[in-house]
Amino acid sequence: MAKRVTGPEIEKLIQLLAKVPGLGPRSARRAALHLVKKKEQLLGPLAEAMGEAHRKVKICSCCGNVDTIDPCTVCTDERRDQAVIIVVEDVADLWALERAGAMNAAYHVLGGTLSPLDGIGPEDLNIRGLIDRVAKGGVRELIIAVNATVEGQTTAHYITDQLEGMEVRITRLAHGVPVGGELDYLDEGTLAAALRARTVI
Amino acid sequence: MAKRVTGPEIEKLIQLLAKVPGLGPRSARRAALHLVKKKEQLLGPLAEAMGEAHRKVKICSCCGNVDTIDPCTVCTDERRDQAVIIVVEDVADLWALERAGAMNAAYHVLGGTLSPLDGIGPEDLNIRGLIDRVAKGGVRELIIAVNATVEGQTTAHYITDQLEGMEVRITRLAHGVPVGGELDYLDEGTLAAALRARTVI
Repeated sequence: MAKRVTGPEIEKLIQLLAKVPGLGPRSARRAALHLVKKKEQLLGPLAEAMGEAHRKVKICSCCGNVDTIDPCTVCTDERRDQAVIIVVEDVADLWALERAGAMNAAYHVLGGTLSPLDGIGPEDLNIRGLIDRVAKGGVRELIIAVNATVEGQTTAHYITDQLEGMEVRITRLAHGVPVGGELDYLDEGTLAAALRARTVI
Repeated sequence: MAKRVTGPEIEKLIQLLAKVPGLGPRSARRAALHLVKKKEQLLGPLAEAMGEAHRKVKICSCCGNVDTIDPCTVCTDERRDQAVIIVVEDVADLWALERAGAMNAAYHVLGGTLSPLDGIGPEDLNIRGLIDRVAKGGVRELIIAVNATVEGQTTAHYITDQLEGMEVRITRLAHGVPVGGELDYLDEGTLAAALRARTVI
């Protein structure tokens, strides 16, 4: 803004809101104005919820999930089969897989993928922790659910190598046609994979 | 989420973030995760800025602007020509006009437009305050900068009627071709207005 038309507190709020993914400078202004108008119903509770999260949030020392307790809700859930660990790149992937609701397993968040070009090596990821979890015993299966990218696959291979000789079944997500997807729009790699992995109706 | 995978504090944060305009349920999750990851750089400062705004924000009793002081930054700015008042529907319009930086005037926020169908009458808007400001004297010009909608124009006419007999020049924004706009995409009303208000090059 060329000239100041409002207090520095509100301008600061706009600046910070603009850094939230999904909001830009323009929508941050709109969001700030909406928050200020809904002061009691939204701004106050949101400020409190953020303060609460800031004070309490921690990273689970076992699986890398984000929670307010350590070990986290997933790791301490006795109704889950803690002998099956789904390995994901990011906490967002853990949440996404949970929404699918297909497995009742434990998780392990790597925090990224191996990427020599970006200088990300095994020691930058939570791979050591995973190997320790498997080495401790009691893990029956490791489902490597990393993204189907070159980096993801490299990471999957690295983990498989590291676990050689250990008594654990290592699996990966199936490749195929997305549910509701149109064949016409799919790449050849996916189509070839879906054909190879065809199942009897 | 089918099963709980994180603390109730984080789920509450996601729920509240989803109510911010520009964010939906999905992007609220992404935003919450980003905030939690940038705990010290973003989540903490944002929580503080929101708390600060919640405690301090008020509506200017003179013009209706949102600020942390009352009267607001605009009303107390002595470098502005306080004898010219730009009348807008919403605080967002005030901010937008200020970004244009074309005028160095005072403002008056109506808080909406007359809309009999929605049950919004003159007493629901900040029109009384505007008339009082003009009646007090010292106002040379009133620029009615409401939206070019039916409701906006109705509101402009109502205000003009109410001020009849008072010593004040009442103007409205010019209609015409938006800067950078293509004639081909403009409606007939705008083109006709732009032709009628043509200026000598």
